[in-house]
Amino acid sequence: MRDDQVLSGAAVRKVYETDAYTVDRNPPLAVVLPETTEEVSAIVQWCRESRVPFTPRGAGTGLSGGAMPALGGIVISTKKLTKLLSTDLENRTMLAQTGIANLRITRMVEGDGLHFAPDPSSQSVSTLGGNIAMNSGGPHTLKYGVTVQHVLGVRMVLSHGEIVQIGGRCGEPPGYDLLSLVVGSEGTLGIVTEAWIVLTPIPEAIQTATACFPSVREASQAVAEIVKSGVLPAALEMMDRAVLDAVQAAFGLEFPSATQAMLLIECDGSPGQSSDDLHQLVEICKKSRAIEVKVARTADERMKLWTARKKGVGALGRIAPTVVTHDGVIPPSKLPEMLEEVYRVAEEHGIAVANIFHAGDGNLHPIFCFDEREPGKVDAVVKAGEEIIRKCIELGGSVTGEHGIGVEKVDFLPLMYDEASMALQGEIRTIFASDDLCNPCKVIPNAKGCIEHKVRWRGVAT
Amino acid sequence: MRDDQVLSGAAVRKVYETDAYTVDRNPPLAVVLPETTEEVSAIVQWCRESRVPFTPRGAGTGLSGGAMPALGGIVISTKKLTKLLSTDLENRTMLAQTGIANLRITRMVEGDGLHFAPDPSSQSVSTLGGNIAMNSGGPHTLKYGVTVQHVLGVRMVLSHGEIVQIGGRCGEPPGYDLLSLVVGSEGTLGIVTEAWIVLTPIPEAIQTATACFPSVREASQAVAEIVKSGVLPAALEMMDRAVLDAVQAAFGLEFPSATQAMLLIECDGSPGQSSDDLHQLVEICKKSRAIEVKVARTADERMKLWTARKKGVGALGRIAPTVVTHDGVIPPSKLPEMLEEVYRVAEEHGIAVANIFHAGDGNLHPIFCFDEREPGKVDAVVKAGEEIIRKCIELGGSVTGEHGIGVEKVDFLPLMYDEASMALQGEIRTIFASDDLCNPCKVIPNAKGCIEHKVRWRGVAT
Repeated sequence: MRDDQVLSGAAVRKVYETDAYTVDRNPPLAVVLPETTEEVSAIVQWCRESRVPFTPRGAGTGLSGGAMPALGGIVISTKKLTKLLSTDLENRTMLAQTGIANLRITRMVEGDGLHFAPDPSSQSVSTLGGNIAMNSGGPHTLKYGVTVQHVLGVRMVLSHGEIVQIGGRCGEPPGYDLLSLVVGSEGTLGIVTEAWIVLTPIPEAIQTATACFPSVREASQAVAEIVKSGVLPAALEMMDRAVLDAVQAAFGLEFPSATQAMLLIECDGSPGQSSDDLHQLVEICKKSRAIEVKVARTADERMKLWTARKKGVGALGRIAPTVVTHDGVIPPSKLPEMLEEVYRVAEEHGIAVANIFHAGDGNLHPIFCFDEREPGKVDAVVKAGEEIIRKCIELGGSVTGEHGIGVEKVDFLPLMYDEASMALQGEIRTIFASDDLCNPCKVIPNAKGCIEHKVRWRGVAT
Repeated sequence: MRDDQVLSGAAVRKVYETDAYTVDRNPPLAVVLPETTEEVSAIVQWCRESRVPFTPRGAGTGLSGGAMPALGGIVISTKKLTKLLSTDLENRTMLAQTGIANLRITRMVEGDGLHFAPDPSSQSVSTLGGNIAMNSGGPHTLKYGVTVQHVLGVRMVLSHGEIVQIGGRCGEPPGYDLLSLVVGSEGTLGIVTEAWIVLTPIPEAIQTATACFPSVREASQAVAEIVKSGVLPAALEMMDRAVLDAVQAAFGLEFPSATQAMLLIECDGSPGQSSDDLHQLVEICKKSRAIEVKVARTADERMKLWTARKKGVGALGRIAPTVVTHDGVIPPSKLPEMLEEVYRVAEEHGIAVANIFHAGDGNLHPIFCFDEREPGKVDAVVKAGEEIIRKCIELGGSVTGEHGIGVEKVDFLPLMYDEASMALQGEIRTIFASDDLCNPCKVIPNAKGCIEHKVRWRGVAT
């Protein structure tokens, strides 16, 4: 490796001390920028011989601290692993290095009528490798599935530096499904350096509408009716009044004053099918007491309808210095009950909350807006978050929909598993990474230092 | 357990000595018929204490020997595990015991406009548990995916008798994806006794057509063009002339005399969409030199078009005493090259071959038709099968599309994995089932007796 592939110094240590998760931080010793799988392998071998922890990192947009170097050591960045290795348009697959940005993949194949379907909000910068690590979803997950459904195989470096291939251009080979284990393992089972991915045809037509409701309960009811209808929208998103107010203040969004929640609905397919589907879902909204429905007639109008969804989190950033996005899942039919609990908990702890989320999947994103410099606020936010997550579990849901466990939710995992399953989780990690150097303290605490790290940060906050 | 829950005696031993795989056989000591998860746990604990191997079994329709008691011992049948435990129509999920037949699930919910999407040819008898064990697919897998995409969670008994829950009504919880490991593990990681499954809306409209081609190459070319078009049919199946001749002899199927291959194409969705899609695919067939296209106008006509596909294997059974169905996958664009190799290999070994398969997935099913009493024939069939499988791997495919490894393909697995991945496969089995009693010799040879079993049977055949 060349000198310009190693970054160090105070500024670098500061930049890489965490990702988009901001509660814990820890600076690395140095950052390395390998360009090939073999270079990643050499770095990992060096780390192992030197007993130095290493943490893989894509664009650093993760929200649960997956790329935060919990025990210091080396950050292995995929910033220079950006080569497209081969494209097979006939079978609609591509092999690429994993540092490539999600949206760049689509830009390269959209001329052939194809795209890479997973669409996390971070897609303009977040990397293929980061999406694989977190098994990322997005607004169109409802119809197109999460990342694992778009990955056919990976080349990866295990914790001892071995390079292995799992799956390939034809998908997961027979035997035990190692590929589904690796996708979503948050970089704790090794470092994925290359991936065979599925390219999906761009839909022929897209139809988009928004519907405003006088209450969150009525909007949630419409979501439940849409799910029941059997028509599968490409996206079904909800924004509550707090989000709409923020977007109105920042970008002049217009909506009827009685609105308490807005749904964004998108259908795709042939022109006939997508229109039929959207019409049917708009009728459901009207029956569920929508007070206004807008259907986009042009691509520009479509982009305008997406404003509240796409710019909601950014707009909230203007009204409070700190914005923390939570993540949980519940069965869609439990949305009204769950949202009432979110508002109750936020009020009890005196925190402003806004909701913007993938309603069709039951994937909530309550966003707490506060000032972290205000005494006791961070404590209150952590406690409120825990209460919300426990309610998700109680309603038959899960502690994370798509943002992962990282360091943020390590303590919640045992709430979802019985003892025997939890033991299996630990053993899975061990067979891939038998020591505690590969992205330590994420998903499962696996090193003595993890507790010390937690006490250092959470000891203050809880 | 009651007396009528234990079967033994010579007749029982004979019936349960294998499943639909007929190359190896081995009689069990006895067959037990538990009615609850707790009874399964008690049986497994007894087996473990007594060091007796156990093999789970659904309907016994598996084609790779997954339910064959390779080392004797106890067969644990799910025949009495047929209770529907709960249905949640709002969220379109169901919890059922795993001995329930696939088609019975659909029969119970079709009045509500729902069905269980995985549709293996055996679906009228094969069980939910068997489908989970083999991660079964079927003609509609192309659009709706395999079993793992329709399972949200399982309750299962591990090899020490522990009962664990993995996933649940909301799907796989966070952490490592144990659910995708268990689905498709062929009953080697434990016994799945209950499952939460997804119910899928029955499509509003279904449009079906057949297209006859003057050569397999031209039919394969049409498949490649359809895959490239971006229109996703619900099913895309191919039958070659040998199948059509057999179905003509048995059921009077009519087709132009110049036909060498037939495609069955099905599109679903709204009436408009499914018609548009089918029309587009029919046009592709015509451009690819189809000599006849039939489009069904009624449900009866649709059933008639399915005749060759649904009754093909049965019809082949009338023309030869022994019919062995192979199973492999290749990228769809390699179909013409692969099929030529299938015909070449069969001819070289002097075996009649017919092809009936899921063309859209590149999932081949070459069927050898022969008389096993003829000297040397079984040898030739085994050798020809191996050559075909090796060609699948060479073309970037896999040794099994949907029939599993079982005992049949144990020796092929290492061809698809490097040494480190193969070691991971073995370790996955060990962390779930630390001894060699749970469905031994399947997927990975895990007991000394496995080699002896193989020599006993394959020593003759190879």
